[in-house]
Amino acid sequence: MDKVKVLSKWVSMFGMRVPIALEEKGVKYEYQEEDLAPNKSDLLLQMNSVYKKIPVLIHNGQPICESLIILQYIDEAWDYKQLLPINPYDRALARFWADFIDKKFFDSGFRIVWSKDKVEEGKRDMLENLQFLEGALKEMSAGGSLPFFGGKDFGFLDIAFIPFACWFHIYETIGNFKIPFDSEYPLLDAWVKRCMERDSVKKVLPSPDRALEHILQLRERYMVG
Amino acid sequence: MDKVKVLSKWVSMFGMRVPIALEEKGVKYEYQEEDLAPNKSDLLLQMNSVYKKIPVLIHNGQPICESLIILQYIDEAWDYKQLLPINPYDRALARFWADFIDKKFFDSGFRIVWSKDKVEEGKRDMLENLQFLEGALKEMSAGGSLPFFGGKDFGFLDIAFIPFACWFHIYETIGNFKIPFDSEYPLLDAWVKRCMERDSVKKVLPSPDRALEHILQLRERYMVG
Repeated sequence: MDKVKVLSKWVSMFGMRVPIALEEKGVKYEYQEEDLAPNKSDLLLQMNSVYKKIPVLIHNGQPICESLIILQYIDEAWDYKQLLPINPYDRALARFWADFIDKKFFDSGFRIVWSKDKVEEGKRDMLENLQFLEGALKEMSAGGSLPFFGGKDFGFLDIAFIPFACWFHIYETIGNFKIPFDSEYPLLDAWVKRCMERDSVKKVLPSPDRALEHILQLRERYMVG
Repeated sequence: MDKVKVLSKWVSMFGMRVPIALEEKGVKYEYQEEDLAPNKSDLLLQMNSVYKKIPVLIHNGQPICESLIILQYIDEAWDYKQLLPINPYDRALARFWADFIDKKFFDSGFRIVWSKDKVEEGKRDMLENLQFLEGALKEMSAGGSLPFFGGKDFGFLDIAFIPFACWFHIYETIGNFKIPFDSEYPLLDAWVKRCMERDSVKKVLPSPDRALEHILQLRERYMVG
């Protein structure tokens, strides 16, 4: 009998990916909410001794770290429903854009939320990054005729990006700007609404207002705001 | 008939990975050496419009970017010889440590070579990162009884890390220190020597002296030295 445990944090976009993937795969798991340093659990420090960060998936005692690596592990360890595409080139594209989200999109948002002097730069980069992602969605959904980054199926790249949907409100509020989804990124706009109807996503994503409130409190605590 | 082209730069550790993997897989390819900006080829700018960086693999006209994603693509697109392990957990470990090399090990070396004020910090981190990698090699080679990160076979993680072997001399010379391989990292020490005997590695890795000379010239040009 599989024993599956997730160490995560409800507001983390990286953390949300893991339970979404497990829900999609129909894997039962235990969820452990983690706190920030210095209140991280001994289990987290022991299971991710390199980075000491969430999320961590513990499968029958073996830890797997880094959210995109965890998603690929989940896809390979449990057969039911393929998250990554079958075709090698489509798999490479999905990995490329997931990596782009972690390197570029996350970073533009980070500057908006946590820097004092790079907010405008972050906003400009975020709009440019969304343009790239709109193009990627167009390519991967056959021009918008298929519903997801994964084509007809909600898959790896959908799971990688959808947690950011509850951060858009945070970026807009703190950055004091509006992301022009309906005029500039119509495919992404429709994609977010479509993903939000899925049980896995509804179950895992917090409300944007609750996430915003939490982040505003953290900014106050760390004196960013 | 497959048409395979590699856009790369001989001294880049990320660039070297791609031809090593193709050599291991027995795939014939055309190699195109790229120059730095503003002399990048139109083909590179077109094939990697997001990052405009090497390496790029072009397979029958389709570009794949980011060296670790390229390695996985190569492994999935050509059947002969598996580069990633079979077991999902071993695959996750290989991906985790390859990512660690790109995030942490590369970064410590970058500070040694390209910063003016973070050289000591880079050296300290490099030794700590090597300790982690020595431990990873111990785990993945069954305590040192198997020859490679890939266990009995030279694989994905071996390919990801071996290009750094011709950079150790650069790090030591510019950082003015000695990496204590034989006393502190004996498994890595033996592993480097073993990898250096492989045809694929011999064919792709430049001599440490030639690489050093080139990097010293670049440092002079960009006034780091």
